[in-house]
Amino acid sequence: MIDIHPVVHAISKLCVAMGVLMLAPAAIDWANGDPNWRAFAMAGGATIVLGLLVAVATPGDGRPLVVEQAFLLTTGLWVVLPLLGAMPFMLGAPAAGWTDAMFESMSGMTTTGTTAFPRLDHLPLGTHLWRGILQWSGGLGIVVVAMVFLPVMRVGGMQFFRSEGFDTMGKVMPRAGQIAAEMTQLYLGITLACAATYTALGMGGFDAVMHALTTCSTGGFGRYDASFAAFPGSIELAASFFTILASIPFVRMLQLVHGDPAPLWRDSQIRAYLGIIAAACLVILVYEALWRSVLPSADLAREVIFHVVTITSGTGFASTDVTQWGYLPFVLLFFIGLIGGCTGSTVCSIKVFRYQVLFEALRGQLTQMQSPHRVRPLRLQGRRLDPEVVNSVMAFFTMFVLSFGALIVALALTGLHPRTALTAAWTAIANIGPIWGPEVTANGSVADFPPSAKWLMIAGMYLGRLELITVFVVLMPRFWRQ
Amino acid sequence: MIDIHPVVHAISKLCVAMGVLMLAPAAIDWANGDPNWRAFAMAGGATIVLGLLVAVATPGDGRPLVVEQAFLLTTGLWVVLPLLGAMPFMLGAPAAGWTDAMFESMSGMTTTGTTAFPRLDHLPLGTHLWRGILQWSGGLGIVVVAMVFLPVMRVGGMQFFRSEGFDTMGKVMPRAGQIAAEMTQLYLGITLACAATYTALGMGGFDAVMHALTTCSTGGFGRYDASFAAFPGSIELAASFFTILASIPFVRMLQLVHGDPAPLWRDSQIRAYLGIIAAACLVILVYEALWRSVLPSADLAREVIFHVVTITSGTGFASTDVTQWGYLPFVLLFFIGLIGGCTGSTVCSIKVFRYQVLFEALRGQLTQMQSPHRVRPLRLQGRRLDPEVVNSVMAFFTMFVLSFGALIVALALTGLHPRTALTAAWTAIANIGPIWGPEVTANGSVADFPPSAKWLMIAGMYLGRLELITVFVVLMPRFWRQ
Ligand SMILES: [K+]
Ligand SMILES: [K+]
Repeated sequence: MIDIHPVVHAISKLCVAMGVLMLAPAAIDWANGDPNWRAFAMAGGATIVLGLLVAVATPGDGRPLVVEQAFLLTTGLWVVLPLLGAMPFMLGAPAAGWTDAMFESMSGMTTTGTTAFPRLDHLPLGTHLWRGILQWSGGLGIVVVAMVFLPVMRVGGMQFFRSEGFDTMGKVMPRAGQIAAEMTQLYLGITLACAATYTALGMGGFDAVMHALTTCSTGGFGRYDASFAAFPGSIELAASFFTILASIPFVRMLQLVHGDPAPLWRDSQIRAYLGIIAAACLVILVYEALWRSVLPSADLAREVIFHVVTITSGTGFASTDVTQWGYLPFVLLFFIGLIGGCTGSTVCSIKVFRYQVLFEALRGQLTQMQSPHRVRPLRLQGRRLDPEVVNSVMAFFTMFVLSFGALIVALALTGLHPRTALTAAWTAIANIGPIWGPEVTANGSVADFPPSAKWLMIAGMYLGRLELITVFVVLMPRFWRQ
Repeated sequence: MIDIHPVVHAISKLCVAMGVLMLAPAAIDWANGDPNWRAFAMAGGATIVLGLLVAVATPGDGRPLVVEQAFLLTTGLWVVLPLLGAMPFMLGAPAAGWTDAMFESMSGMTTTGTTAFPRLDHLPLGTHLWRGILQWSGGLGIVVVAMVFLPVMRVGGMQFFRSEGFDTMGKVMPRAGQIAAEMTQLYLGITLACAATYTALGMGGFDAVMHALTTCSTGGFGRYDASFAAFPGSIELAASFFTILASIPFVRMLQLVHGDPAPLWRDSQIRAYLGIIAAACLVILVYEALWRSVLPSADLAREVIFHVVTITSGTGFASTDVTQWGYLPFVLLFFIGLIGGCTGSTVCSIKVFRYQVLFEALRGQLTQMQSPHRVRPLRLQGRRLDPEVVNSVMAFFTMFVLSFGALIVALALTGLHPRTALTAAWTAIANIGPIWGPEVTANGSVADFPPSAKWLMIAGMYLGRLELITVFVVLMPRFWRQ
């Protein structure tokens, strides 16, 4: 039987941290004279007290977690924190029901960015700040999980990174705390730089902070119903830049900060990722010019770059209606959303690294079908690719595709239009953000979806954010029998 | 270097056979006094002469083919025969261009069933018979390839069947000829029974033969623009029955004919396949009753069964507009089309067996993530599942999904509406038949598609029919260097 005490202890300490974070929106609403501050004060107080009580009741023994406990901690965190994070949306503006509040909170913590609220423009600043904080802390959480836990849990081929990347930083587990601290500093630095840039380019101070929080987490919550169409075009380029930063492996940026730019420069995953972005932009611009006689302009190029980056990285901001570009750009954006950014960043989806493993594995399969008796080891980034990593990545890909299909069918069962079901499943399982379909409100929210569809999307976002396998392992009866 | 002489020799002999088959439509048009007979006589004569010349020029040495030659033979046959089979459509009615003629011929030989002709009702009988013969011989060809070649070529996990199924019939390769002969008899028997049943239920004699040819090959070419809506409802049930027969493993039926019904009865793939059909019918009927207040009637049940069977098996007949049933049935039919029927039959798509392997493999992965040091062998149908089979199936699934996605994007590049691109790629790569979208003509044809889209679909049908990997192996430069 797994000893769940240390897991509960760790989660409760993070609850206290979350409660403390709720005091920030409380403060800003209080300073503005908005009575909405009470919702955050109440929720924050309750969360802190609850967390402290449970933390005291489950004293930790200081021993490092075993793998089973890492699974429980990861899956438990993304249930408990979204539940508590939903409270302010019910107690204060927009006084949401529990389905919508939970949807918004899960969409935040999983950095999905789809909103459940049909009108954003007039919500209190505190509510918006809380939405930003949810995404920012969710993004930080996932980077730490991806770097510290997933490789040890051997989820979806992440064991490839068990030693790699940390070579310059020593062994992982004993130094998990230090890695988390360094990550936090880096992440904070990028976010501050992003907010400063936004301000310099004309965004208001609050908007700059709020959108920096949702940009650097590739989260995509916006403050306005118009999303990024509310801002001057140059901000799109800044957003594109910081989104790309947030979707490459954080360890590479840490190495750069530590004075070693070579790993960043040589990383084939980063090169492939930038190549995909460049190719997609080029195809769309050529398509517009040749098929639709829209001559390339700086404005169009900027908008294309912005939307390609925001979809590939799974951020999900929008500044224009991309379906107006014709059929192909829409189809292309749909598929690059299923590629995603790099591993070890805040992005979700399948990720470039896994496609690299898949292509290398398929090449190996075809080669071996011709020369069955000559086994050639597979390689990636100059290293040997363990068969276990390949199997793990293939299993991940298969689970992703099958879960995606099942989610589309399940969403169609709730009565959604096929286009809505398809894009809602896509946005949920790959944590992207936008949805297209007749049931989507003008600001892109799921407010008019049936509750069953919202809960299915909540489950999909949760599954997708935790790389599916993490959840499936814990759901197996076997896991609890050991 | 591969010795291609025996391959060319085998293909040329099959060309002669195809030329002889062209004399059947010639005869029926001649008997009807339709000048269209000349097209078939010319094409048939040319094909026979060409085949004979090449056969004589490349004498076989009687040795069995090696694996590389089996790859070349399979990939070569489905290029050469469709090319020759396209001739009558250009020389005679409907005097198609070479793109449409090649599309129709490839759609026939791959048992896809999408037509390139915008009007079918008034084409000569010979043209329709030829469309039926193309599908019937394509279906027979694929059954023989699936039973004799694919297991030896180790394509897509088919090596699982290398010994199985043939246990009661001795070793495969030395007896390939006899197996092919027995298959042909069985296939012919089913087709005659189907034609007799259609006639008894009120179909005209020619229509019965033509539709039996396209039913038992799960091909789906129809003679009328209205497809099966042209016939009384009882014929739908007969078509469903014979389609199911044609989409279960032929070896099981052979064993039954040889007096051993147990393997058919115990085959978990057949059980799962029938279970999928039953579940899909039930879900659609319940959905209609609860969400759309359409009370279940015998008529509705019959239509639902017919369409579920015709899509799962990849046959593709239609008797009503299924999009009128609401959103869910359409989405469900789309996904069961990606399941398909059983291996070793005329059906295409991913097939039930591969999903069984995938689920067993994923279960094994999840189990092993918890107990890394306890390796438990995977099992299917009471037999041990070799890791090589699992890898091969996973590679197939991955290639199928990636090729499907690439085909959708490529079709969108030609300017097709996203819905058309999606369903056209689906129908091509899984060889199903129907397409939905604004560019589709009233009778479901691709006549109005841009030529580039038609050629992409031709490539997709070819890839899908030959289980992708077969083609990719031959396309690798390595294959030719050996
Ligand atoms: K997002
Ligand atoms: K078909």
